[in-house]
Amino acid sequence: MKFTAQDVYNKLMNDDQILTSSGQIVFKFGDIGIIVKQKDVVGNIMQEWVKEWLAQNRITYEISQNTQMPPDFYLDPSDKTVDLLEVKAFDNNRGPGFDIADFRMFAAEAIDKPYMLDADYLIFGYVMNNGVVRIKNLFLKKVWEITCSSADWPMKLQVKQNVVHKIRPSTWYSSKVTFKPFTCLEHFVSALEQTVYQNADTRHMAGKWQNRFLKSYQDHYGKPQLPSDIGSTLILGATSDKKTA
Amino acid sequence: MKFTAQDVYNKLMNDDQILTSSGQIVFKFGDIGIIVKQKDVVGNIMQEWVKEWLAQNRITYEISQNTQMPPDFYLDPSDKTVDLLEVKAFDNNRGPGFDIADFRMFAAEAIDKPYMLDADYLIFGYVMNNGVVRIKNLFLKKVWEITCSSADWPMKLQVKQNVVHKIRPSTWYSSKVTFKPFTCLEHFVSALEQTVYQNADTRHMAGKWQNRFLKSYQDHYGKPQLPSDIGSTLILGATSDKKTA
Repeated sequence: MKFTAQDVYNKLMNDDQILTSSGQIVFKFGDIGIIVKQKDVVGNIMQEWVKEWLAQNRITYEISQNTQMPPDFYLDPSDKTVDLLEVKAFDNNRGPGFDIADFRMFAAEAIDKPYMLDADYLIFGYVMNNGVVRIKNLFLKKVWEITCSSADWPMKLQVKQNVVHKIRPSTWYSSKVTFKPFTCLEHFVSALEQTVYQNADTRHMAGKWQNRFLKSYQDHYGKPQLPSDIGSTLILGATSDKKTA
Repeated sequence: MKFTAQDVYNKLMNDDQILTSSGQIVFKFGDIGIIVKQKDVVGNIMQEWVKEWLAQNRITYEISQNTQMPPDFYLDPSDKTVDLLEVKAFDNNRGPGFDIADFRMFAAEAIDKPYMLDADYLIFGYVMNNGVVRIKNLFLKKVWEITCSSADWPMKLQVKQNVVHKIRPSTWYSSKVTFKPFTCLEHFVSALEQTVYQNADTRHMAGKWQNRFLKSYQDHYGKPQLPSDIGSTLILGATSDKKTA
């Protein structure tokens, strides 16, 4: 049975009432069983849980072989350019702590596979109290809805010794944060391009990145979905609010 | 019922036949259950498992409030200077990956609580295959039996920017390693003292450390258990093989 990411989200929320469900992690060894109370475990196993949930609900899926990059699941295995589903989880009491992706790989894939930018992120905001796990929030988001700019860089990143490592998530659901999520895909792509330039590790490819990306995007989608002047103007007072999702 | 660390070890090995037992970690949420296959989880939950094992076997214990330092358990709550039990676990296919302790705290506690040096380390060498956990090796060791010197430092340490952070374990059970475990407590203490000196972060207290430690040790044990000339001679060609355990 074919499901879109939106169908998956709706079923979890409505049929399964996931926000009122609960669970726990149990370690049984020999005759002794204990409830595991380590919160960080949950973040790493929701993807496995979603896989089993898809299987038990007879929803079509295929696992991506590249565990480093989105997506985790192809919901339409016959066309791996659409219905891409990435699963993330974080401790809802602490805020998003997951990585979006490795920056270099993401910038390269944005050119090779521009449809990857349209992947859906299914994000579990969990809480754990005394070993009981509950889902406090379930989100379905595009990448530009869960990323933002930062003080020193065009996007929020994990940077070590001035080399960019990971793209990091915004706290997209909070009204209190200084840096709000990007308002459209163009702003995200623009920040991506500027980061390619600012990052010592990718600067050598910055000159070609924008042209290659625009060509690739147009080739795939058959239209110049993005304005041709992506770049600093969009970041520094953008007017385009065109939504792609 | 009072048990020594050796009693605990014997019961696990003989009565419980722990080396032939198996177990798994299960995450059940809503109606969906999955077997957790993340190996690193196991290392962090064996201590909880031991606690439950002690309780179900009606063995006397008290949990230490300081989770940063050995021990995890007092097996004689009426005398917290004896029968100290610390629990560690590591992936037997990868080698010991746990920290012994924070170096600064350990060096300070060696003076305040010299009996802490006699704590027993109960160490689980586990393997996980397809989510099935087995204990491949169970060790009962003193701290000097699971630590060693290293190329640049008197002991194996986690060092960041020339500041010592953690005391790290040797691969004590392997005959192939360059650095063998210390052969007695004196060698470990000597390495501790030299590290206090070599480490920029603790050098200011190095001058007093040895005298304070020796006095503290003698006060507690009522005898100069350690030779008064601990120091470089022991590291650089020690002759003392006196065992304390």
